[in-house]
Amino acid sequence: MQEVFYFGSGPAALPRPVLEKIRHELLDYRGTGLSVLELPHRSDAFFEIRDQAVRGLRDLLQIPEEFAVLFMHGGATSQFSMLPMNFLGSGRFADYLCTGFWSSRACAEAARFAEVRKVQALCKGESLSIAPHEEWDVDPQATYLHFCDNETIQGIAFPGVPQVPQEVLVCDMTSSLLMHPVEISKFSLIYASTQKNLGIAGLCLVMIRKDLLEQVNEPVPRLYDYRRYVREDSVVNTLPVFAIYVLREVLDWVRTEGGLPVLHQRSLARSAQLYRVLDESRLYENRVAPGFRSSINIPFAIHDAGTLEDFLRQAEQRQLLGLQGHRSAGGVRVSLYNAIPDAGVDRLTEFMSEFEARRQHT
Amino acid sequence: MQEVFYFGSGPAALPRPVLEKIRHELLDYRGTGLSVLELPHRSDAFFEIRDQAVRGLRDLLQIPEEFAVLFMHGGATSQFSMLPMNFLGSGRFADYLCTGFWSSRACAEAARFAEVRKVQALCKGESLSIAPHEEWDVDPQATYLHFCDNETIQGIAFPGVPQVPQEVLVCDMTSSLLMHPVEISKFSLIYASTQKNLGIAGLCLVMIRKDLLEQVNEPVPRLYDYRRYVREDSVVNTLPVFAIYVLREVLDWVRTEGGLPVLHQRSLARSAQLYRVLDESRLYENRVAPGFRSSINIPFAIHDAGTLEDFLRQAEQRQLLGLQGHRSAGGVRVSLYNAIPDAGVDRLTEFMSEFEARRQHT
Repeated sequence: MQEVFYFGSGPAALPRPVLEKIRHELLDYRGTGLSVLELPHRSDAFFEIRDQAVRGLRDLLQIPEEFAVLFMHGGATSQFSMLPMNFLGSGRFADYLCTGFWSSRACAEAARFAEVRKVQALCKGESLSIAPHEEWDVDPQATYLHFCDNETIQGIAFPGVPQVPQEVLVCDMTSSLLMHPVEISKFSLIYASTQKNLGIAGLCLVMIRKDLLEQVNEPVPRLYDYRRYVREDSVVNTLPVFAIYVLREVLDWVRTEGGLPVLHQRSLARSAQLYRVLDESRLYENRVAPGFRSSINIPFAIHDAGTLEDFLRQAEQRQLLGLQGHRSAGGVRVSLYNAIPDAGVDRLTEFMSEFEARRQHT
Repeated sequence: MQEVFYFGSGPAALPRPVLEKIRHELLDYRGTGLSVLELPHRSDAFFEIRDQAVRGLRDLLQIPEEFAVLFMHGGATSQFSMLPMNFLGSGRFADYLCTGFWSSRACAEAARFAEVRKVQALCKGESLSIAPHEEWDVDPQATYLHFCDNETIQGIAFPGVPQVPQEVLVCDMTSSLLMHPVEISKFSLIYASTQKNLGIAGLCLVMIRKDLLEQVNEPVPRLYDYRRYVREDSVVNTLPVFAIYVLREVLDWVRTEGGLPVLHQRSLARSAQLYRVLDESRLYENRVAPGFRSSINIPFAIHDAGTLEDFLRQAEQRQLLGLQGHRSAGGVRVSLYNAIPDAGVDRLTEFMSEFEARRQHT
């Protein structure tokens, strides 16, 4: 049987060697006699997993010492609420730079708890782009500025760290983290749920500059208090042990692949390969302006509904899975996370060219 | 090598057949071509897992139609905050019946958000017991009464559903759920994190009588709003797919074991076997009064520190693991969840008797 390639946006493909290792040691975690699924969250074996995951992240991302690296329940959505609950209110407000679905959702959730200023930065003309920073209606007095560096549904990304007057920059890197080096010190808080490049669903990673903790409000729910996670080295309650174990295994794999510079080059090459097919096509339409195109999540339209259906069905027959667009956008979406093998991108782009050629001849 | 028996309090032992099944299908979930670790949270394959887990719970526990069965992130601790945030405030208050560590923690967390009345019901005399219900200082006007039916650290349990004047009874059944039949209709909300009898860490199960939802406050965090979970059939954001899959497998196993009446009898027989050794012992001391003894978590003291250390070390040599008491209590704790085989209880009780006999002869 042909190898399956899975381009889902998250939960996403895991590297095959990671899956095989998990399977291999599932019944006895390294001589403990326990499955990792049974491992106590206060055991030495788990503390080692947690600490190695933190160290792996610190090494790969070169996280400065003044940042704490924390593990939380609930995915990135938890952060949408935690941020305003911890840091806003009592005259403090935040700016939310909105460039698509997820940054807008973060903004809407924050607005339920505090004053936030929605700064629209998505330009919807002939093509989609991000307005130049001079045009952003930001307020230097804002306690923080929040943005999402890569919008998975629109397929639009910031070309670099946005230039803003605020000192406290908060970023949702759920889809981009571990795909390229990041200058962590430019940020105050970075978060990412783990079901894309970091492992499985149910976990959220937070990197926070510790001096931010002095401003935390009371009361916030026990599991929504950043200070507690710092104080208790993330073990505020029973952590999702298995998800943190998978993260550590993924970090190991990233290291053996050569680290972030290598993965970044690979990501650029693959996405270029796919955009080339899109640019040469008269069937597939990606509407993001060059310069703002995501190298990670690449959506495109096929305007005829029957043709779209054919495309998805034939892709599936070729074991190219997870290509259906987000339910709010329709069309096709290709997510090119780290775990996708090059062969997957080759088979996909070949199929796309063939599919279009066949249609022109009928 | 001798089979390992693991008596940890949670994360706890999983049934061996469940572990083997997970391992068996880890690389390809039933012909989807994906690992269950990669399965999208909005795929038909996952919806089937979720729906089968709900149905499994409904069948085993005979959950009435007027209850919704929901899956949330974060374990039981999330409920400690969700309850007051959703239902208290604006003149509404709650009674918290306190019989040990976890009910007191739930109470303390609720008190951070709303008026709560801590109703002390633990009697600490010669032995530990629960005060008769006539003595509880409860207020019939309370919006709800919260209790924990089985305290895992004290090893104390309610002999039945407590008699209280409140109509709305909320129970933390984290350690007891699936160990015996429950008259669900006597409750308004039952919750349990899943790392004891239901699967792995990172998930919380909630059963809620739907008419309760009319009273929910605004705003509560997106992931802390019971109504959203009901409206979206638990898919409020990316759910911990794998934890729900493990739950479904555990429910299947419970069914093949004969269901809750059978597991209840087994639990009573095993705990009686262990209490017999404790009652005959001059070395091991359990301080809970008969009638209030937990059949699930059984703590006991060994008063000499060196002897305690010997006990734990020798137990480990016999592959009897996870016996260390909670860090707040010390001593020994035996958790006899469903997944422990009878042979584990036999080996443990034999070891305990031998250990004591050997000490008397030296």
